[in-house]
Amino acid sequence: MAAAATNPPSTPKPAMRDSLIAAAFQLFLERGYEQTTVDDIVTLAGVGRRSFFRYFPSKEDVVFPDHEQCLDDMTRFLAASADSDDPVTRVCDAARLVMRMYAENPTFSVQRYRLTREVAGLRTYELSVVWRYEKTLGDYLRTRWADRKDGTLRANVAAAAVVAAHNHALRRWLRSGGEGEPLEEVDRALEFVRATWSPDAAAGTGGDPAGEGAEDVVVVITRRSTPMWRVVREVESSLGEG
Amino acid sequence: MAAAATNPPSTPKPAMRDSLIAAAFQLFLERGYEQTTVDDIVTLAGVGRRSFFRYFPSKEDVVFPDHEQCLDDMTRFLAASADSDDPVTRVCDAARLVMRMYAENPTFSVQRYRLTREVAGLRTYELSVVWRYEKTLGDYLRTRWADRKDGTLRANVAAAAVVAAHNHALRRWLRSGGEGEPLEEVDRALEFVRATWSPDAAAGTGGDPAGEGAEDVVVVITRRSTPMWRVVREVESSLGEG
Repeated sequence: MAAAATNPPSTPKPAMRDSLIAAAFQLFLERGYEQTTVDDIVTLAGVGRRSFFRYFPSKEDVVFPDHEQCLDDMTRFLAASADSDDPVTRVCDAARLVMRMYAENPTFSVQRYRLTREVAGLRTYELSVVWRYEKTLGDYLRTRWADRKDGTLRANVAAAAVVAAHNHALRRWLRSGGEGEPLEEVDRALEFVRATWSPDAAAGTGGDPAGEGAEDVVVVITRRSTPMWRVVREVESSLGEG
Repeated sequence: MAAAATNPPSTPKPAMRDSLIAAAFQLFLERGYEQTTVDDIVTLAGVGRRSFFRYFPSKEDVVFPDHEQCLDDMTRFLAASADSDDPVTRVCDAARLVMRMYAENPTFSVQRYRLTREVAGLRTYELSVVWRYEKTLGDYLRTRWADRKDGTLRANVAAAAVVAAHNHALRRWLRSGGEGEPLEEVDRALEFVRATWSPDAAAGTGGDPAGEGAEDVVVVITRRSTPMWRVVREVESSLGEG
């Protein structure tokens, strides 16, 4: 909660909303999620019930307060794509927005992760959020690949792969208690997917909208059959070029 | 319902369980899912409430009566794998068990699909079932790829890809009202994934139906500051691993 107050998301949020989130998490941690009612939360926050429901449709929504904003950001980011953008690179960049949201408040993210492990209803809620991200990425890919015979299948599979890679990195980071560099971890995981589904789009071009400082990472994609001297030359030229 | 009665699943089920499913679906279709109570179902089936809860933990479970059995079948199928089985081919075969379950009763499957589209709670329930299939496939792949440096990531991404391909075929078939050959459709979708993730296991046709030639892409991610000898060693070990 302290982290939420000192490190607010980019969009300014009403103070009342933040108080409700802080009060809710204080109670969830103290007495458990199931044992906390909306009445308890509004009493601690010193506001009325209607204020709670103005911001959150249900108690579950206060646990995941930033996903709606992040889904909006992702949709806008994808809508702003150029035809020249590599589609898979673009959805990988879109997925990074989610990791960035988590990384903004490590304490809050880790607390929520632990809560979600304990409460079955929250896990289910989370699955539906994940599905919405996957659908958002899939919609974009389906449009970009509309001309391909296998476009829809490819879009669905690639979107699922991106989400799985992102969540792999996210869960590792959350499980570690928020240690390490989540954005580097997600870069590695997403690069694995990007190279699988879009091997021709050379890494380093485009990408990195987050300005996450991947600049000193060199990615070499080659085929098993490529002779080693050629791989070395490619690495050297990548290193030299900057 | 008629389909459920005339075309029972392979495992013999108590008649009472089948009567409860038939009664539940009759009421769901007549008056809607939300408007049907467990009391209504047991009254129509002519049994007591306790009988209902002996077979189904909740009203939602009666909508998806065969997933527990199918998850068991999948787990047993994967546990019976040999080390010589190609892991990705094996999880594709495991996913076919799910499609086969749906294909056994097209009428019931299509009715349920339509119901699930209308009731938000059932969609969420379905997502949690899908997640359990994905986890079952992922667990198997993680074990098979335990020796690989990228084993866990690869397992998570491949499991998600298999589930997405399966569901792509399943949803197309359900949306069409159960027309066509669902098992052929899922074969095509799964072959796309198999060729992507396990290009070496030739499926007779030599894989890569998408013609994308991703057959043996090696990805090396390194930092600019890494000495060249170390990069070469990493490339060599990737190439050697197979």
